[in-house]
Amino acid sequence: MKVTQEAEKIQAAYYIGDKAFSLKDAQSVVPASDEVRLAVGYVGICGTDMHIYHGVMDQRVAPPKVIGHEMSGTIVEMGDKVTGFALGDQVVVRPLDYCGDCPACDSGHSHICHQLKFMGIDSPGAFQQFWTVKSRTLHKLPASVSLKQGALIEPLAVACHDIARARLVAGEKAVVIGGGPIGQLVAQVAKSTGAEVLISEVNESRLAFARGNGILTVNPVEANLAEYVAEWTEGKGADVVFEVSGVKQAIEAMTEIAAVRARICMVAIHSEKPAIDLFQFFWKELELLGARVYEYQDFEKAIELIASKQIDIEPYITSVNVLGEINKAFEQMSGNPQGMKALVSCQ
Amino acid sequence: MKVTQEAEKIQAAYYIGDKAFSLKDAQSVVPASDEVRLAVGYVGICGTDMHIYHGVMDQRVAPPKVIGHEMSGTIVEMGDKVTGFALGDQVVVRPLDYCGDCPACDSGHSHICHQLKFMGIDSPGAFQQFWTVKSRTLHKLPASVSLKQGALIEPLAVACHDIARARLVAGEKAVVIGGGPIGQLVAQVAKSTGAEVLISEVNESRLAFARGNGILTVNPVEANLAEYVAEWTEGKGADVVFEVSGVKQAIEAMTEIAAVRARICMVAIHSEKPAIDLFQFFWKELELLGARVYEYQDFEKAIELIASKQIDIEPYITSVNVLGEINKAFEQMSGNPQGMKALVSCQ
Repeated sequence: MKVTQEAEKIQAAYYIGDKAFSLKDAQSVVPASDEVRLAVGYVGICGTDMHIYHGVMDQRVAPPKVIGHEMSGTIVEMGDKVTGFALGDQVVVRPLDYCGDCPACDSGHSHICHQLKFMGIDSPGAFQQFWTVKSRTLHKLPASVSLKQGALIEPLAVACHDIARARLVAGEKAVVIGGGPIGQLVAQVAKSTGAEVLISEVNESRLAFARGNGILTVNPVEANLAEYVAEWTEGKGADVVFEVSGVKQAIEAMTEIAAVRARICMVAIHSEKPAIDLFQFFWKELELLGARVYEYQDFEKAIELIASKQIDIEPYITSVNVLGEINKAFEQMSGNPQGMKALVSCQ
Repeated sequence: MKVTQEAEKIQAAYYIGDKAFSLKDAQSVVPASDEVRLAVGYVGICGTDMHIYHGVMDQRVAPPKVIGHEMSGTIVEMGDKVTGFALGDQVVVRPLDYCGDCPACDSGHSHICHQLKFMGIDSPGAFQQFWTVKSRTLHKLPASVSLKQGALIEPLAVACHDIARARLVAGEKAVVIGGGPIGQLVAQVAKSTGAEVLISEVNESRLAFARGNGILTVNPVEANLAEYVAEWTEGKGADVVFEVSGVKQAIEAMTEIAAVRARICMVAIHSEKPAIDLFQFFWKELELLGARVYEYQDFEKAIELIASKQIDIEPYITSVNVLGEINKAFEQMSGNPQGMKALVSCQ
């Protein structure tokens, strides 16, 4: 099976450094025996893509490079050893390239492989018309999930992973600190488990967005968060805290608002070694759980949540631009706390 | 049932402040209906008792007070509602006085009750001839466990609790940072689960003590701990790390030596909010578990470990002094890293 002539010469958006992408003709990659070629449907702009756009990851990315990993697409060509998929299948990609041979992979934790390469950062990404990937990265979309919705599966899988790490169950009370795109999705998935959820966020438009999705909110600048949570939980404290803000005040708050034996799920990346109230870990037997990307089952769960309409993902789509407008798409989202998810249409 | 005349007027050791105890005649407490009066057998000196002795907890203890909580004894009088015990039973006390009515108690975590009072610190303790306690605090000693060994059940239960919190299982590799009495016991209990155990400790006599109990050791001043653990685990890292040292270097080391998805059990009390490498929590999906005192099952497990001779507790007994020599017992242990456990005989 050969791909059409047009696919061999494709349009790809190259990040060229200094907040700029350049659209170029590129050569699409002929799939190896265990790979598929995808006609890319939609690609979302991730916080990490935004970091790359701002130049802070140039050393790792080494422009010019095609980035992008929150995507959906259609299989247009398959290597001869690919099974379980068919031409025309609409799919999403779990963009993790693991070695399969290190102690982490051996222990069943290939998503935190010692040599993990993140597709779209450490290898070419999806901001192009066609993308060739290993078939083991694919998850099939049911007919009830559109390609547009499909581009939201990856960030939703992040949220599903966080909820799984925190072992959140129905009836518990969870506080999500930080109401950016991931924080909002964490709150949505938490709510879908039957937990009661509170988002703590300082930005009023994000608070309004959360309330629009039926989530209880508090602005910790206007109210005392610890007192608010104490009252909300009748003195018990939060069963689970998700730290998604990345700010120092959240590190203080997370141990303060936690109940005895609470789980604190660390979703945000704190690079600067913050001072942590270990006494509270002792006093209340707290648990801190690091969370990184996702596993196979998190993608399946995310697809199920959208397919079953337990989560309405449409409100998260802030804008859709065609590939030729990728610079505009990034510009619009840069420093825009109102924006949730910008999509780039690649066909 | 009345206690003997002698028990009514008893000898008790009062901590009077400034590294001194004073032996006085005291009134023993007549047991209420749910209480028992114990003839105290042996009482161990805990690290917390040593802190009290050095005056750093005077505000909480408010001398003069009878302290002590690592104890064994014999039931000599019982309240009329006490069941499951008989006069003459040899027992140990789980020295936790919980309210039974707060969110923590409601959730089955009475050992971290919101109003927890620690017997022997927040209420009178065991450094006296007779001690009256609630029967719900008692655990029966089998005939194969002596009263002398029984005084070690409480610290051994701390170690059992830590191993349970860390979910350590056979075949895993655990590093215990800090080889004081609790660190050594944590290592012993870890070994009894079938795990492989390494103690990291700077004091040579403590290292020798550990090796005498069949525990692998490393001195992090002489060897690079991270490299040592990497080699020992063939590049995987430690499945479980117990931080029992309370020093800053251990906070750095614990995340460095941990494997992907490792559990770090925080046994030491760090009051000063240390800087923690949260990036490692993200990168390796680490788990930090606070541990405080013990639960019912930890005492039962500790008794079983001694009764079944899975752990030989005798080497941990550094000295035995009679109650009249309590000042000497504390002096000998003060600033003495060689010492493991000093017992005071109270009959």
